[in-house]
Amino acid sequence: MERRDAQKLKLQRAALARRAGGHAGRKQRRSAAESSSAVHPGLLGGSYRPLRERDMQRIHQTALDVLENIGMASPIPILREHALAKGCRIDARGRLCFPRALVEDVLASAPRSYVNHARDPRYDIEMSGARVHFDPGGESVLTLDFASGRYRPSTLIDLYDFARLVDRLDHVHMFSRVVSATEIPDLFANDINTAYASMAGTAKHIHLSFSDAKSIDAAIAMMDLILGGEGRHLERPFCTSGGCPVVSPLTYGEENSEVCIAATRMGGSVGVVIAPQAGATAPAALAGTLVQTVAETLAALLLVNLVVPGHPVGFGPWPFVSDLRTGAFSGGGGEAAVLNAAAAQIGRFYGLPTIVGAGMTDSKLPDNQAGYEKGVSVALAALAGANIVSETSGMLGSLMGCSFEAMVIDNEMLGCIQRALRGIEVTDETLSYEVIRDVAYGEGHFLGHPQTLQLMETEYLYPEIADRTSPSAWEEAGGHDLRERARQRARQLLASHYPEYIDRATDEKIRARFPIALPREAMRPGNRRW
Amino acid sequence: MERRDAQKLKLQRAALARRAGGHAGRKQRRSAAESSSAVHPGLLGGSYRPLRERDMQRIHQTALDVLENIGMASPIPILREHALAKGCRIDARGRLCFPRALVEDVLASAPRSYVNHARDPRYDIEMSGARVHFDPGGESVLTLDFASGRYRPSTLIDLYDFARLVDRLDHVHMFSRVVSATEIPDLFANDINTAYASMAGTAKHIHLSFSDAKSIDAAIAMMDLILGGEGRHLERPFCTSGGCPVVSPLTYGEENSEVCIAATRMGGSVGVVIAPQAGATAPAALAGTLVQTVAETLAALLLVNLVVPGHPVGFGPWPFVSDLRTGAFSGGGGEAAVLNAAAAQIGRFYGLPTIVGAGMTDSKLPDNQAGYEKGVSVALAALAGANIVSETSGMLGSLMGCSFEAMVIDNEMLGCIQRALRGIEVTDETLSYEVIRDVAYGEGHFLGHPQTLQLMETEYLYPEIADRTSPSAWEEAGGHDLRERARQRARQLLASHYPEYIDRATDEKIRARFPIALPREAMRPGNRRW
Repeated sequence: MERRDAQKLKLQRAALARRAGGHAGRKQRRSAAESSSAVHPGLLGGSYRPLRERDMQRIHQTALDVLENIGMASPIPILREHALAKGCRIDARGRLCFPRALVEDVLASAPRSYVNHARDPRYDIEMSGARVHFDPGGESVLTLDFASGRYRPSTLIDLYDFARLVDRLDHVHMFSRVVSATEIPDLFANDINTAYASMAGTAKHIHLSFSDAKSIDAAIAMMDLILGGEGRHLERPFCTSGGCPVVSPLTYGEENSEVCIAATRMGGSVGVVIAPQAGATAPAALAGTLVQTVAETLAALLLVNLVVPGHPVGFGPWPFVSDLRTGAFSGGGGEAAVLNAAAAQIGRFYGLPTIVGAGMTDSKLPDNQAGYEKGVSVALAALAGANIVSETSGMLGSLMGCSFEAMVIDNEMLGCIQRALRGIEVTDETLSYEVIRDVAYGEGHFLGHPQTLQLMETEYLYPEIADRTSPSAWEEAGGHDLRERARQRARQLLASHYPEYIDRATDEKIRARFPIALPREAMRPGNRRW
Repeated sequence: MERRDAQKLKLQRAALARRAGGHAGRKQRRSAAESSSAVHPGLLGGSYRPLRERDMQRIHQTALDVLENIGMASPIPILREHALAKGCRIDARGRLCFPRALVEDVLASAPRSYVNHARDPRYDIEMSGARVHFDPGGESVLTLDFASGRYRPSTLIDLYDFARLVDRLDHVHMFSRVVSATEIPDLFANDINTAYASMAGTAKHIHLSFSDAKSIDAAIAMMDLILGGEGRHLERPFCTSGGCPVVSPLTYGEENSEVCIAATRMGGSVGVVIAPQAGATAPAALAGTLVQTVAETLAALLLVNLVVPGHPVGFGPWPFVSDLRTGAFSGGGGEAAVLNAAAAQIGRFYGLPTIVGAGMTDSKLPDNQAGYEKGVSVALAALAGANIVSETSGMLGSLMGCSFEAMVIDNEMLGCIQRALRGIEVTDETLSYEVIRDVAYGEGHFLGHPQTLQLMETEYLYPEIADRTSPSAWEEAGGHDLRERARQRARQLLASHYPEYIDRATDEKIRARFPIALPREAMRPGNRRW
């Protein structure tokens, strides 16, 4: 590009900045809208289709063959009972086999849309069509310590802090048990405290994973206490649950099957997430892993909907990948990216609200590897149209670790991905024929054109911590990388954002009834150093 | 996933490793094939379509309106002459206007496939269909110094070193002037030395951008000297050229127009790359920027193919984006990612070999921001089916800087993206029905299954520097991030790989004829510290 009249451009830029009210004016307008208007939760995916239509049909049909002829081992009694009544059979090996017509019937009658509620209705998640949302993930046992920069076992306070952080990050649309409170060995106490710390930390939708079906009643009681009356959770079930009721290959897990059935009592959708690992607990051929993942996720859907017909299910085919040099799980490669995007496409093919995993980097730090492994896989899953892309934020080390600064960085990445996902609106106005003509005939550039000012805040998303300065300005400002800027931002949010989503009186009721281990002083500003 | 018999798995993993010959065996096989067999240059894109068919038609038709009614300012005399002879008109403003039928005719007769040759035919690039290849980019004026870790002006030796590095990186498929030799102010001397340093450093295809049309004869002479006879370059034009013959909005640039015409004499394709900047030299509406970019790239195609009918052109619509807070170019946002993917889709729509830009991160360092900004944008451009995705490797700081360690990192990223791009092959075999049945009825896992060993090297790509160890193993190994591992790898390659693509006798002939500034001692191992 040859140089234009630089002085003229500079003047027009200044005018643009003045009219836009500068940084301050923009900030004000943006905070009025409470988030950038360039992107919003629920943007439509579906423009990326890794599988051809014919291939998708073959995967579907082979998955039905698997369910019909090979079937599932170890169904729990209540499933066995309902399944046999609907025409299933137990084969000579004791496996439960599902006739394909029954699977098709259950597929046809499963709800195609529902809402995952949030305490604050602005954060409600509409699970339908190809609307895309981002979930942070879970459940890592290690946290990258904010002070030492080293990994240590995750705690309940970490979980609460992650909830507070997610509460303030625009592009992380819900919360889930990102880390495990490893210091609480008792499964029930752990479940209860996880539910409490999540509800205390965020007004976004919360997905809880329980180790024990009886924890569900406690979570229901807690929701009712917060909402102010028994049974109120049914009006607005702001927590959902579910789990992984399948042990791959093709075996039901008893406890998790029971959790999934019990989770229907919470009133909201039940997320079933099935993660066989290619090369270890699923075939090394990616297509074969998809077949098995689809068969197993259908088996989980059948579990819930044969026992509780028509209950909304989150269909979660999560194909995992092994690094065959070691047999260990690896989430960061292109294989995992394309597999989970294909899984999202299959969810769209069924028309079911779908959850997939992406962003499962193998890096231990929020470094360049984490950036591209997460960026590629989350973008592909989103473009393929998953309703919830999970494991997107904070997660590191093949899901073993979680990091506060990574969570802040990933929020920026999710903004960038959403802007790409939004695509390009083509209308008479946006085609801009007259604008081009006027500028070509006129002053030769667009900075001063009314269209530019008009679209400045709606067509473009401006990152908060990603660097866009010139090399010299960047160097003068200290030459920091994104991780350092993210640390500052995380520190600022964590030191200041102590929401009171559970009022004092309710808190006392909850603590009187349940063994809450989260110290009250950790929930007030000024008591901890950041 | 519940725990399986860990001991059994461990034994089977060991057996798998033995049969695969362990790391050493794998390395041997891989070096025999000279690259991983899981991915290869030219994998097919096209599964991502950011624009609906109807929207693409409207963009195309509006671009034709622009060329027909608004036209292009400042056509060079030879274009004006050919264009008027073919029915174009000069309007009252002196602008050259192209009837849409003529544009359609030129589009219809432009070559749809050709080869971008390389010194080593194994690196030939087939420009056709949706075959995707990766180009590093250009032309940054700053290099992130390997020793000091700070930016400094780029030099000719840097360019040579980048060429040597690209020569050894599997997933960077060609070379281009990634950095400018800023210490050589004379344009002709600069062009000549750029050509020499590129040809000396790599046997991959080289794209040269010239400041001066007369440099082209020198580059032709150099190719002929290397290939051993006058006119030999026409058999195997391993260097191509082209440029940006348009100054946006809608004005031809004189010098670059002449370079593009002269570049046809090199025998290979002419790449025309047009980069109007949304909000500055193109409309702020993304659709409008696409319209103008397409119109201008068609104008560049018309320039070459009206003057030299049927000459192969690389169609390069490169929509750039402004950060409207400052008016500066920003390459890292989601807007840039979706715009360039849409540009690739339009190239596919025309059926023309297409070049787009992606990976233009705004970060100054190979950090997390660089990772996700590059990962997202390169993945989208590749999935959309650009034949060459440029600016993919090494480039940082909104194309202002280049880095050796970033180049090595980006090579890994490109491998990951290619594995996703390859997709999922669906055949009777890969659907794996029998494999699933055998394992479900048998030992319950797939590590020991013959299919797993058989597919280990062909279904999966194993990164060389990306970390996949456990958190504890990673910590024991020093807890490095990817940048540090990339530095080690870059150091090792740069200290050892001094190819002799120009033999001594030829080198003397070239140096006798042209003012080559690259010192011979910089081209031999042991003379520089890494």
